[in-house]
This record gives sequence, structure tokens and C-alpha cells, in this order.
Amino acid sequence: MREAAARYGYDHYTTDWKELVSDPQVEVFDNVGPNNLHAEPCIAAAKAGKHVLCEKPLARNAQEAKRMWDAVKAAEVKHMCGFSYRFVPAIRLAKEMLDAGEIGEIYHFRASYQQEWIMDADFPQVWRLNKGVSGSGALGDLGAHIIDLGRFLVGEPEAISATTRTFIPERPSPDGKGTVKVDVDDAFEAIVRFSNGAVGTLEASRFCSGRKNHMTFEINGSKGSLAFDLEKLNSLQVYLREEANPQLHGFREVLVTESDHPFYSVWWPHGHVLGWEHAHIHEINHFLSAIVKDESVEPYGATFEDGYKAAVICDAILASAETHSEQKIIYEA
Amino acid sequence: MREAAARYGYDHYTTDWKELVSDPQVEVFDNVGPNNLHAEPCIAAAKAGKHVLCEKPLARNAQEAKRMWDAVKAAEVKHMCGFSYRFVPAIRLAKEMLDAGEIGEIYHFRASYQQEWIMDADFPQVWRLNKGVSGSGALGDLGAHIIDLGRFLVGEPEAISATTRTFIPERPSPDGKGTVKVDVDDAFEAIVRFSNGAVGTLEASRFCSGRKNHMTFEINGSKGSLAFDLEKLNSLQVYLREEANPQLHGFREVLVTESDHPFYSVWWPHGHVLGWEHAHIHEINHFLSAIVKDESVEPYGATFEDGYKAAVICDAILASAETHSEQKIIYEA
Amino acid sequence: MREAAARYGYDHYTTDWKELVSDPQVEVFDNVGPNNLHAEPCIAAAKAGKHVLCEKPLARNAQEAKRMWDAVKAAEVKHMCGFSYRFVPAIRLAKEMLDAGEIGEIYHFRASYQQEWIMDADFPQVWRLNKGVSGSGALGDLGAHIIDLGRFLVGEPEAISATTRTFIPERPSPDGKGTVKVDVDDAFEAIVRFSNGAVGTLEASRFCSGRKNHMTFEINGSKGSLAFDLEKLNSLQVYLREEANPQLHGFREVLVTESDHPFYSVWWPHGHVLGWEHAHIHEINHFLSAIVKDESVEPYGATFEDGYKAAVICDAILASAETHSEQKIIYEA
Amino acid sequence: MREAAARYGYDHYTTDWKELVSDPQVEVFDNVGPNNLHAEPCIAAAKAGKHVLCEKPLARNAQEAKRMWDAVKAAEVKHMCGFSYRFVPAIRLAKEMLDAGEIGEIYHFRASYQQEWIMDADFPQVWRLNKGVSGSGALGDLGAHIIDLGRFLVGEPEAISATTRTFIPERPSPDGKGTVKVDVDDAFEAIVRFSNGAVGTLEASRFCSGRKNHMTFEINGSKGSLAFDLEKLNSLQVYLREEANPQLHGFREVLVTESDHPFYSVWWPHGHVLGWEHAHIHEINHFLSAIVKDESVEPYGATFEDGYKAAVICDAILASAETHSEQKIIYEA
Repeated sequence: MREAAARYGYDHYTTDWKELVSDPQVEVFDNVGPNNLHAEPCIAAAKAGKHVLCEKPLARNAQEAKRMWDAVKAAEVKHMCGFSYRFVPAIRLAKEMLDAGEIGEIYHFRASYQQEWIMDADFPQVWRLNKGVSGSGALGDLGAHIIDLGRFLVGEPEAISATTRTFIPERPSPDGKGTVKVDVDDAFEAIVRFSNGAVGTLEASRFCSGRKNHMTFEINGSKGSLAFDLEKLNSLQVYLREEANPQLHGFREVLVTESDHPFYSVWWPHGHVLGWEHAHIHEINHFLSAIVKDESVEPYGATFEDGYKAAVICDAILASAETHSEQKIIYEA
Repeated sequence: MREAAARYGYDHYTTDWKELVSDPQVEVFDNVGPNNLHAEPCIAAAKAGKHVLCEKPLARNAQEAKRMWDAVKAAEVKHMCGFSYRFVPAIRLAKEMLDAGEIGEIYHFRASYQQEWIMDADFPQVWRLNKGVSGSGALGDLGAHIIDLGRFLVGEPEAISATTRTFIPERPSPDGKGTVKVDVDDAFEAIVRFSNGAVGTLEASRFCSGRKNHMTFEINGSKGSLAFDLEKLNSLQVYLREEANPQLHGFREVLVTESDHPFYSVWWPHGHVLGWEHAHIHEINHFLSAIVKDESVEPYGATFEDGYKAAVICDAILASAETHSEQKIIYEA
Repeated sequence: MREAAARYGYDHYTTDWKELVSDPQVEVFDNVGPNNLHAEPCIAAAKAGKHVLCEKPLARNAQEAKRMWDAVKAAEVKHMCGFSYRFVPAIRLAKEMLDAGEIGEIYHFRASYQQEWIMDADFPQVWRLNKGVSGSGALGDLGAHIIDLGRFLVGEPEAISATTRTFIPERPSPDGKGTVKVDVDDAFEAIVRFSNGAVGTLEASRFCSGRKNHMTFEINGSKGSLAFDLEKLNSLQVYLREEANPQLHGFREVLVTESDHPFYSVWWPHGHVLGWEHAHIHEINHFLSAIVKDESVEPYGATFEDGYKAAVICDAILASAETHSEQKIIYEA
Repeated sequence: MREAAARYGYDHYTTDWKELVSDPQVEVFDNVGPNNLHAEPCIAAAKAGKHVLCEKPLARNAQEAKRMWDAVKAAEVKHMCGFSYRFVPAIRLAKEMLDAGEIGEIYHFRASYQQEWIMDADFPQVWRLNKGVSGSGALGDLGAHIIDLGRFLVGEPEAISATTRTFIPERPSPDGKGTVKVDVDDAFEAIVRFSNGAVGTLEASRFCSGRKNHMTFEINGSKGSLAFDLEKLNSLQVYLREEANPQLHGFREVLVTESDHPFYSVWWPHGHVLGWEHAHIHEINHFLSAIVKDESVEPYGATFEDGYKAAVICDAILASAETHSEQKIIYEA
């Protein structure tokens, strides 16, 4: 830590979040800790008047998230939840097209977030596989992203049915001594009904062989379709039903790297692609700009309200999986 | 009809199925009529000792399908249900790999059948949109295919949760006079739990802009993954986790056109691709060979039993959508 | 042969082309023999007043092809050279777009025909590897196709520079006794200047690992681009520079399976793809229709003139490879 | 400039390269100026004992490049030419596979670098279109990259035949007053014979509609094939002929983002992709490490020798285009 501070030119550093929160020089609190360290530090920071950016999922469950949202509202600080994929240029372009009505009435949203990093049964029960720390498994880690994108791009879900699976129920303990029960989901599958009439599927899994960071979604509407794949994040697939020449209709691959594309005016020439980290750069720039200009982070930034609402949906997914029945999505004000 | 008979060199023809069924020269009855004309003619044909091939879905519901299955069993004739995609070379290759354990334990099956041909609100209420004739909408027409593939490739579903949507509830009457209510689904979304522990999503829709005949599935297992797209039906995407060099792991596109690939030894040189119709050629050849050699059509051909089981699952999907609760899949013997 | 005739319902058959040519019942002569059996039988058939369809390459060299073209002209019969890829729907769509000026002034044509079937050094010296029979190797067999497409889609080449390679100079004799010299090219590479100002590359090889029947081309023009891949023959990639919304420019994948696409009105619903053989069906239908209606096979059918011109270009490629200098393309009238 | 210096925390700055070269505090000279400002400053920097990194193409022609190479050799400083694509992880992986013999004997190299940014006739004659400043057009700017990759991956070219085109011969003057002649190539096409027996095509163009930064190459060898596309730079397509199960042969898409892949151990989790700029980060890190550790920049870094050799090949392409005859590639020692 000392080395890192020196290397990147920081005068001082701390490993105790309470020092950060009580330091009057600190104006922004960026919480990238594990999920069980989101609520208390963020709430304390908000109370101390700091603007707060917190990693997703905002909390381990809706109740905890609600307290965080209440705290930032009460403190009147700026707040964002790290749903960084809203800041991928191709996804912002999708958002702008949807807002402009270019896809028409939405019929379908299908989103899937697939990884494979814990498929080996010898992989230990790290904190992300421990419900006390993480709240849930693939659901909160991966599912929260696509739940947020569903709300961002399509609208509010009305009801959800889901199932979950833990394929490997016991794993080596992180401390190397014996095995431990895995008490979170390795995967979930859900169907969702949106208030606007759209229907869709949501799923996340860490058991998809060959899928490294494969977050995909597709939206079908009355006027067209959109499709995205995070492993090819510079592209957006676009189909427009009402184009001039019907003989030439087809899904086009838009390389979202033109100077008039979202975020791209500050980057390099077109076709010279961006990486995954740029979404974070755009996100942080968005948050800092909102602070400097004292502007709202909405509608493009995800607030703690968005973090809370995603947590409500995550909770509903777990409840549906347990009860084998559809759950209505109900937010508290 | 007379013209067609003459053109293709048939001595005589009939437009009355009862004549066919009572004609002792006819040995095989191939039913490609609308769904409401499946049960009665097929049952009559079976009783008359004819072997029967019937288009999918086998019937408008499970009860009707059950009567058909019972009839062919009682008559001891050969029977097949037209789940033709089992006869696409790439899908047969997938089946062989799964049977050989090359993909390991199955974790996920996600299948989606997307079309767009009735998105225009002016499109009339043809027979496929009339529950009395068709039984259901996208579900029976498209969904039945992927339900059968799920059973063929992964195993028996144990329980299912679903929702359906009719996006355009009223359409011009087929006779051009006024409008008629659409009483079938335009789309369904489902999550499925398989007996072997796999989970997945199933969906079919006729409201997916830009998707012409886009039937896709992906299977993730402990040893690898498989992916398929009917619009590129000569290819199978294959990922193998246990290959020699981990640095070179990746989804490979297998062009299933080698002489040692399923069905291909009778066709042209490798890379000279097949079309959609070849699945039907393989299917009919399979049925006729089984008759000529007096062999079982199983395990590769779908029987009326398979047609019945798909109908049970379709019924469960409709029931789940109505009751908003998970339905167990229970077959009658 | 007797069996085949019986199976497909032919009254009689012959294995002697001279019998065919002298049979007054025969109206059309379809020559699918090896290249050294193209000229004499086709010329005899033409003299006997038969319409002639001859496989590509039309002949082993330009001189031989010229005699064939002269013969069909003199006999005033219909004639076509089997450049079947002109009859792939996606390629015909490309042709129609180019003729309509939708791609604008053409700048580039790059075409490559890649196979791999003789990479094994133990593969014997079959007739296609014997200059006396075939005239050339990959050049006449594969290259002739893309040379014809270049002329069909872009225009006449003015000059060409080329190199050839025979990677395996000696192979097992076809009769199993010892080895034989391979006196044809395994691959060629060429650059071409067209009369209209376009430039491009042409290549064909039988030594491209993993490429089964991989014929690809791309055309770049002032108003757009087109790209095609024979292993995915139902698709045409299209880019249009002048579309309304510049933010959405991108290569689109047009699935050339709509009822208003070339050749498709007689086939199945959209998205239900065609195979390689359909190009031959379209080709033969085109030829027979031209005969029945006494119409020209041009501009879509390739005539013996086109076969001759392709042969001139093949000869120029071999000459350039030998002399290491650019060759002008000069046709005799 | 002052603003940039302040923003990024530099104590002082200069806009005069002579100040840099004579400043004893400066140890490394990084030349990113236009091509006509490569030779003199780099030679002066070398003479002043600075290590030199110079953008590609190294110089406007081989003679100028030779003087630069001679200078760095004489000064015994470290030197690199900015062929940054050698530092794309997927390309380094290709290099390692080729060096390890995994692709076998090389038969083909086809590389194409396509852009579209000057297709509009109203685009002015910027310095890259002015021979006095740039030396050549698409050839030196884009072609030099693929020429270097050909040498890096396949080996030394022995002879080359080429043609060039200037599609828009006159353009608006950069100063807005009237029009100016364009005296460089808008595109070139070439065929190349390598010393090791491989043959291939090379081309670069700024007139390829829809191609933004589309640098692609494919290598076919006796044991497999490799393919790459800069617009999807995290992937390498790999085909291996000798894999265990012939039924499963196919091009695989290797996502080159694993921790054991080149350069990736310092980056983020697998599947979280890199952008174009990372190649430059790797390149500069390579150069600085070589300086710090006093190691050779070879074999992975391109030296001024490589810059010179690429310039010889560029000159040969221009000479071939003028003389319409093949040019031998001859390097001076």
C-alpha cells in the first residue's frame, strides 16, 4: 500500500475507512470493498458530507440498500452505484436510440451474463461465495448488472419468476482447512414481465464453459432490434425494420468508435477500439463532473435509488426460487 | 393439384384424406395438415395399418396427442413426429457428443426460436393464430421444436415457469371482413429445471424484428459448451475445457460438412453447404429406412411419444402463465 | 450406370459421348467431364445442333476455349459455361446492386478461393493435378470462378501480375506405382488492374488449413461495400455510406432469403436457408428457360465467350508468373 | 502546450526538438512527428546519446531510413521503430505459436489494412497526402505495418509485384486556397514471394467504405492457420490440423485475455478486454525495460533495422508499380 501510494504520487494514504470518512480534505468516497463493507462506510461518508460512489451490488439485500439510499438522500450528497456498463459507448448509444423511439414499442429483453471462473470444484470458497459477505452469488455479482440494464434500457419490471442453482455445494475453505458449504447461487434463471408489456429472460452463471466475461443482451421492438456482447464491447448490432430498401434489411454491426458517438470525441480515431476499463473512466468522469458542476447524475448515472431497486429485484428472484411462484416487484418510496 | 400430380409423375391423387387412409396401396401416411387435422386422420391411418409421420406439434394439446400415441401403439405401426431439426447434421453431431459425455455434466440449456412474420398489425388472423385450429401460437409452432431439442439433447424437464404475451390482440379476419380476436400467444418465455440438475431458459416469439428463422440454442456443461444457430445451420460452435493447450482454448466453429459427419457421406465435398430442406430429406429417409428394415425409429427419430411429451410441456407452459406458478411436468404412461 | 439409370427412371443411357451427340432425341448436351474432354465433345455437340452447357474451366487454355466459342457461335446454339456461383442468390443480389449503381464507382475487388483437400503429401496425383488433363491446378479449378465473378461484378481486367506455387512437387501416382511430378499450381496470387480504374487481388489455393470451400470476395466502392463468403452463402454483407443516420453506419448481414430476393420466390419461407446445390438448380433452370423461350442467356448466364475470356486471364496469370512481369489482358474477337 | 504540461504535472516543456536533443536530462527521445521530421531529429538525438523511439514509417524512403539506422548503430543507443502492433497480445501469441512451429511450414500470408477516412473528395490534402512530407500515402502509413508483420511473423520477402492507385488526384489545399495535386498513393496492392517459399498478398487502402481501422491478416501453414482482425483485437482465430478429433476441427476464436497470455498478467480478469492503446503501453514498457535492464529490444521490438527493411520493401512496391515488373528485395548491410 505504501509502495502504491509512492508509485502513483500520493502524499499520504490510509487503510482504515474511518480515517477517510473523518478527513475533511476528502470530498469523494469511492467504495470498492466487498459487499458487506458497503453500507456502514457509505452511510458514514454520506453523514460526513462526502459524495459517494459505491460498487455494485449496492448492498447484500434490499433492506440494507434502502438504508444507504435513505442516508445519501438525507445528507444531500451526490451518489452513484457502480453500474459501469451504462458507460460503455455502445450501450449509451442503445439507450439514446431507445429514448428516441427508434426501436419502437419494446417486446423482448433477453440478457445473460456468463462466466466460468469457479467451475473447478477445487476453487476455494472465496468471499464472493459466502452469503454473509456477498449477499448472493452470480445474482448480485453479475445479475445485478443486467437487472440494472433492463431497468435502464427497457423499464421497470412488474413481476419475476426465477430459479437458482448451486452446482458445487461444498468447496475448499479459503484458509485451506477442510471444506465449507457454499450458501450462494452459482447461477440463476428468470423470466420477467415489464410494466410496459415487454417480456424477457434474465440469467447469470459462473458455470458457462468458455464464456469469460460474456454479458449479452438483445432487445426486440416494433421498429427494430438491438444486440450487444461485452466481449466485443465496441460494437452494437442494430436492425431497423423501416429502412428504405426492404431487400437490404439486416442486422448491421455498428462500430461505436466515431467521434460523434457517445464518449468518443476525447478518444482516438475511429476503429481504434476501446477496452473494458474505459467504461470506468467514463463513469468516474461523469460522477466528478456532476459534483464539479453541481448537476444531477441522472438519467445516465445509476444512483443509490437504482442500486436499491436492483436489490429489490435480486431479493424477488431469490424469493421466487424458494417459493416456486412469481413475485411482484414492489419498491418502497 | 391435378397439375402437380401430372408434373411430378403420379398416376393418381386425392384431396380427401379418407381415400388415402382406405387405399390398400398406401403404406405410409404423411400428415402435413394444420394441427386440427392431425388427430383424426392419423388415428384412422394407424387403425388402417399405415405407418404414420405427422407434422409437429403432434396435436393441439396433450390429451389429443395422448390419443394419437395410444392409437399408433395399439396398431403397432411405425410412427414419427416431424421434429425435423433432430436431422440437421450439426444437431446430430451435438447429440453424439453429448451422448459420448464430451460436454460432461450439463448445467445450462438456453434455447430461443425467433421469427418476425406477424409483426405487422395488418397481417390477418391466419389459422396459426386461431386456437381452435392450432392449439397455441408461437408455443406450438416454434416452441415445440426447442422443447423437443431440450428433451433430445439434455433430458427430461421436471418443472417449468412461464409467461406468454399476445402483443396484437385483434387482427383482420382472414376472410377480409372486420377483425377477429387473436386467442393464441405471440410469444412465450420460460425457465426450466431438468431432472438431471440442469437449468435453462426457453422462449419463442414471432415478434423479433430481423430474426427470420432464428432458432438458437446453447448448452454449457462441466467439460465444454455447444452453440447452434439455425440460420447458419452448417456450423456447430464447440468449446472444450480440457484441451491440451489452455492458451488456445476458444469456441471453435465446426463446419459440419465432412464425409464422416452425420448424414454427410451421401452429399457433396466438404464446405459445400446444405440447406434447410436437407433435414427433411434425412428425416424421411430415416422413417422409410426404419419401415423397410423394420427397425426402431428411436433414439434419433421423434416418436408420437415424443410428440405427446412435448405437448405436455406446452400445456404446462400455458398453465404456468395463467397461474403465475411453477408447474411440474408429469407424463402419463 | 445401369443401376443409376434404373433408379432415376431413365429408359436408356450411354457411356459414350459420341452416341449422345449423334442421338437426334438429345437437344441439350451437358458436359461435366474432366477438362481435357470439354473441347471435342462440346464442339461436336454444337455442330450437331445441340445446346451446350459445359463445366468450368471451359478448356485447358485460351486457344482451346476459343475453338469452342467459335463452334457454338457458328452453330447458333445456346451455350453456357458452368460458372454456377453467378446463380447464388446473394451474388445475384450483389450484381443487381452494382448494376443499379448502389455501390458507386468501384475501387477494390479482393477475391480468394481457399481449400485444403490436397495438403496431405500422401494424397495422389489425381487428374486435377495433371496438366495434360486439367490445364492448370487451383487456377483453373478455383481461380476461374473468382476471375469470372470479377468480370461479372466489376468489369474487364486490363492487366495482371501473378505468382504461382507448387508446394508439393511430387505425389504418389494415381495407379499406386511410385510417384509422379505435379505439373500444375497448388496456389496462385495475383494483382489485377481493371479498365474502370479498380484494383484488386485474386488468389486461389488448395493449401489453406481449415478452409473447406472458402470462396470470399469483397468489393469497395465510392458509395458502399459488399462482402460474401461461400461457406455462409445465404448472407451478403452490405455497407452503405450514404444512409440517413451516420451514427448507425455499419456492415449489415443481409439474409438473402426473402421472397423478393433473387431466385427465392419459388423456395421456402425466409430464413429457411438454401444449400450449395441450389446454385446449380438455378443455373440449369436459367439455361433450359433460355432454350424454351429462345432467349439470350445473357447477361446473367456465363456464355462460352465468358469461358474463353476467363481462360485468357488464366493464361495471363501463368505467363506473368513465369516472366515476373505484368501481362496485358487481350481478347480475340 | 503550456496547459498540457500543467495538466499532466510536467515542470517544463519545449516545442523545439533541438532543445530536447541538447538537454542532458533527457535520456529517451520519442519521435512522433510527421515523416519528414524523423531523420534529422532522430539522428541528432542518437548522436547526443539518447535512446530513440521513432514512429513508423521510419523515414520517407529507404535511403533516409538507412542513415537513421547507421546513426543509432554508430551511437550505440537503444532504438525502436513504432510498429506497435507487434505488442497486441493476440499478435504476440501468433508470433509465439509460429516460432514454436505450431503452424508448421508457412504457405500463405495475406494481409490487408483498410481505412476510409479520405474517401470524400472534399477532404483536404493534409500532410499525409503530400509526398514531400510523408514519402508515400497508404503505403507508408498503413502498408508499413503489415509489411513489418509479414517480416515479423513469416520471414523475409524475396520479391514483390505491386500496383498503386490515386483515386482522387486533386484535393482542396490545406490552406483552403484552391486545389493541390495528390502525389501519393491512395491504395496499393501487392503479391509477395517469401524466401521460405510462402506466397501472399499485401494491400492497404484509404478507400474501403465501412472499414475504419480494419487491419487483417491470415497465415496458412502445413499444421494450421491463424487469422486476426484489428477491429476485434482481443481475439485470435486459430485452426489446428492435427488435433485429436477430426470431427471437431474448426477455427476457434481464442480470446487472448487469460493471465498466461502475452502482456495480460498485469491487466484485469479474463474476458475484460483491452483497447487499441494498450499496444502502445506494452511497446513503451518494452523499450523502457530494455533501457533500464540494458537488454536488447529484439526479437519482439522492431529496431531501426526493421524500420529500414520495411522502407526497402515500400520502395520496391513503388518501383514495381512504376515498372510493371517484379522487384527483388535487397537490403544493404
